[in-house]
Amino acid sequence: MCYTQDMPKIVDHDKQRKKVAEAAWRVIRRDGLEQASVRNIAAEAGLSPGSMRHYFTTQSDLLAFSMKLVSERVNERILQLPLSGELREDILMLLCEILPMDDERRAEMEVWVAFMAKSLVDPKLKFLSDEVSDSLRSGVERMIHALVAQEPRCRHLDAALEAERLSALVDGLAMHMILQPELVTPMQTRAILIHHLRNLYS
Amino acid sequence: MCYTQDMPKIVDHDKQRKKVAEAAWRVIRRDGLEQASVRNIAAEAGLSPGSMRHYFTTQSDLLAFSMKLVSERVNERILQLPLSGELREDILMLLCEILPMDDERRAEMEVWVAFMAKSLVDPKLKFLSDEVSDSLRSGVERMIHALVAQEPRCRHLDAALEAERLSALVDGLAMHMILQPELVTPMQTRAILIHHLRNLYS
Repeated sequence: MCYTQDMPKIVDHDKQRKKVAEAAWRVIRRDGLEQASVRNIAAEAGLSPGSMRHYFTTQSDLLAFSMKLVSERVNERILQLPLSGELREDILMLLCEILPMDDERRAEMEVWVAFMAKSLVDPKLKFLSDEVSDSLRSGVERMIHALVAQEPRCRHLDAALEAERLSALVDGLAMHMILQPELVTPMQTRAILIHHLRNLYS
Repeated sequence: MCYTQDMPKIVDHDKQRKKVAEAAWRVIRRDGLEQASVRNIAAEAGLSPGSMRHYFTTQSDLLAFSMKLVSERVNERILQLPLSGELREDILMLLCEILPMDDERRAEMEVWVAFMAKSLVDPKLKFLSDEVSDSLRSGVERMIHALVAQEPRCRHLDAALEAERLSALVDGLAMHMILQPELVTPMQTRAILIHHLRNLYS
């Protein structure tokens, strides 16, 4: 009996935490990270400031949870991609999935930039941001290693150097797309990645 | 007489504005942009909060001025670089000057990341950040155009695409260098740029 009584509460608790994290995204996107106080996020989520302590102990906890949710959403989407088996095509598709190619991914990226900036001075966020950077980096490393292993024309590549070059290129393009969307369009970004991947074959 | 009496005051005023901007950098680097309130910056600069209104009308003004100072410092250093006349060498030197290769440039870049994040929600900073991005972009465009014009093996390059590719690569490397300095070192970054520039010749 104890379980059936408690279950809904646990589910509600998780749901509420997500609701609060999504409210935090909206505040950060609209007003910037420095407006993401516990009080403002509570108001955005339709909760009383006092009730927030049931879900998060500190503002840093709340922001870390929101940051984690962003990265989980990206990971889930990547896992669902229909890979073709054609290596260069699949790499292109994976990279485009990380980039802010539409409104949803643009919103995620804007929130992410705010988190990254804060992670420079908040150890808890720094830890998380490192985790995500490491996972992105190792994803790109696996792509390059697959190219070296499977494509005769890529055998000469310096895998570590090419992985960092591609990963920096993708992050730089992502920054440019959200900072100057009128200059750096999804179409242009795609063309640059196609060109970069083709160059790896020569 | 009026002029000679006023001159020292103007000089002092400019000096004080610089002093306040430098205090703002220190606060941003140490505690993050959301701690860069007028009150905290005044304390860091050794001024009373009330006296700040003589130098800046709003917090946004103050941050915009600090951001401008960062970009002016970078520009001044670039203008003083001893160019060799060997195009690829000079491009490498210019790009390395923008990157956080030492402590001073690292500090500038950290402050810059905080500004960029805030520029997404502050129109005044957005305008400035666009100005700096445009100037960096057109600098890189000039480099690529010079390559296309002067190097027979670069004649086939798509200048617009290569300019954005190189500029995104440099910005991505800069981000990685300050977010994960233990993984992305100045030496590795330099090697990646040398490799990238060499590839443009093939």
